[in-house]
Amino acid sequence: MTTPLQNDLFLRALLRQPTPRTPLWMMRQAGRYLPEYRATRARAGNFLNLCMTPELACEVTLQPLRRFPLDAAILFSDILTIPHALGLGLEFEAGEGPRIDRPVRSARDIDALPTLDPERDLRYVTDAVRLIRRELNGQVPLIGFAGSPWTVGTYVVEGGSSKNFQHIKGMLYGAPRELHRLLAHLTRATTDYLNAQIAAGAQAVMVFDTWGGALSPAAYREFSLRYMAEIVSGLQREADGRRVPVILFTKGGGDWLADMANTGADALGVDWTTDLSAARAAVADRVALQGNLDPSVLYAPPDAIRAEVDRVLASYGHGHGHVFNLGHGIHPDVPPEHAAAMVAAVHELSPQYHV
Amino acid sequence: MTTPLQNDLFLRALLRQPTPRTPLWMMRQAGRYLPEYRATRARAGNFLNLCMTPELACEVTLQPLRRFPLDAAILFSDILTIPHALGLGLEFEAGEGPRIDRPVRSARDIDALPTLDPERDLRYVTDAVRLIRRELNGQVPLIGFAGSPWTVGTYVVEGGSSKNFQHIKGMLYGAPRELHRLLAHLTRATTDYLNAQIAAGAQAVMVFDTWGGALSPAAYREFSLRYMAEIVSGLQREADGRRVPVILFTKGGGDWLADMANTGADALGVDWTTDLSAARAAVADRVALQGNLDPSVLYAPPDAIRAEVDRVLASYGHGHGHVFNLGHGIHPDVPPEHAAAMVAAVHELSPQYHV
Repeated sequence: MTTPLQNDLFLRALLRQPTPRTPLWMMRQAGRYLPEYRATRARAGNFLNLCMTPELACEVTLQPLRRFPLDAAILFSDILTIPHALGLGLEFEAGEGPRIDRPVRSARDIDALPTLDPERDLRYVTDAVRLIRRELNGQVPLIGFAGSPWTVGTYVVEGGSSKNFQHIKGMLYGAPRELHRLLAHLTRATTDYLNAQIAAGAQAVMVFDTWGGALSPAAYREFSLRYMAEIVSGLQREADGRRVPVILFTKGGGDWLADMANTGADALGVDWTTDLSAARAAVADRVALQGNLDPSVLYAPPDAIRAEVDRVLASYGHGHGHVFNLGHGIHPDVPPEHAAAMVAAVHELSPQYHV
Repeated sequence: MTTPLQNDLFLRALLRQPTPRTPLWMMRQAGRYLPEYRATRARAGNFLNLCMTPELACEVTLQPLRRFPLDAAILFSDILTIPHALGLGLEFEAGEGPRIDRPVRSARDIDALPTLDPERDLRYVTDAVRLIRRELNGQVPLIGFAGSPWTVGTYVVEGGSSKNFQHIKGMLYGAPRELHRLLAHLTRATTDYLNAQIAAGAQAVMVFDTWGGALSPAAYREFSLRYMAEIVSGLQREADGRRVPVILFTKGGGDWLADMANTGADALGVDWTTDLSAARAAVADRVALQGNLDPSVLYAPPDAIRAEVDRVLASYGHGHGHVFNLGHGIHPDVPPEHAAAMVAAVHELSPQYHV
């Protein structure tokens, strides 16, 4: 039934197996910097429709692969599908961030949260995964993903994006037991959701902890890392006789990589504020590393981009276990040719690190 | 002429000399969370007038000291006084961030920058320093400050606040020589400006590098730290027979504290994402440390605030060289009583760490 995978460099690198060059993909590779994405999004009417229509989600997932020789596809979706499926009301207004209509702030709000059944409540996601796998036809592996419980929790409690995290940090320090109950609920939902993506065909999964870096070290361990570790333990780690690697990424979490490696994850995402050489030393080659070009390097001309790609490759150094990526999502106002220059540089410059 | 200082705990701690308890002040202690500040600001008409009228700047500088037993006053001003004095046009629109009317992006723009004469171009600041010193009458020391060249540069190049730093990072990677010329100009201006504050009566100075943490480690060293080190070398370090300590603070710079200690600064600010115990080990007691309660802890009730103050004090541990502070500016929507709870907890809990 499943077509054999033609390019497994990404999966091999995540498991620290030898590859002839460094594989790469880009966070938010299906996104607004591509005119073809903007056209499909216009066709969808709004962002949520784009996520919720498997044919359109599949189309934008595949777009970057038609332009660039990338080594993985990533499901086009959003980390807020879970609050949406929990009935909290989700809107994306033009020019604004996301808005949750019914934020969760009290014990009563937490008690009222329903149990998520992904194949019923997030069928549009698993349908998209199945469709993308069929369309990819074994070209490259497909990454599934979810937000970390802490990160999704910030939107759920604040009611949208936040700068100071007034409500959720008020809970964290003032009513920690309530917050733990909420995070435990989100952890169960997220584990089931990622397992449903794996069952539908996701060949690797990534947990995005976008806001873990806003926490103190102690609060990070207690309120973010702990729940990501629970997710890792609860995941189906094999499908079709092949290991399904798990990647954890805490933006701003450079100091906590050693702790993150203890969760049992296969790989860690690293943002550009930590040198990969230091990151590699911190995790003592127990996990693969993914990253970490500053996405704003893509504002510079191609020559400068090439030099910075070289610097990132050299920082990881010789040996396997590196997946090249940006240190965060590609910015919407970057010229696609600049992304192409980065991809070409990785193809050209990385083989020397694998001999 | 100068009244003897009645409370020199802050200055002593910055020089790692013994104190009977941990001194404290709060970043943005003169600010919107205080109703009396909002009243004075309303009287000033707008934020820039408030900065530019020495009597009003003096008034808001002193307000927090009337409420709380703090150990230092900090000049009320803004890091963008330098671009304003360089004639780039500065506006603060209600609800928006600052705007620079004539951003600096080309070699020509950089050539056209005038040389700053602080006693002529920023007289309102040195007048405010002299007035505040007179009004303080030796109660506590007065801190002067400036933004780091990199941080001020982000506003100067972007034309305001920025998320992705498109223009300045485009320069950093694509035209680094131009950016170095701009930063060198800002460094000279900032050094002269801080020396003018010291000559006018500032008893310690702090350099705020709010956006250094947005850089990769290599870019941080080359484009931010290097210029802060130049400032430190160029400062008048003694006044009235007493050392004028210098504090450097890079938000998100927890990994670079050892490098920062090499600049010759007396003390380093630390945000809440780094444990003070780790910070202290990193700098090997060569400098004092200032920080680092998460400002969002002040959204929690007083009991929780007290517990977190205790955690910060314990994290620094026994011995001298700690100035208690928030890890970033106090949020505008924090109840003043919560700040009072923090101050009281430091007074009550810190003496045990100094025996």
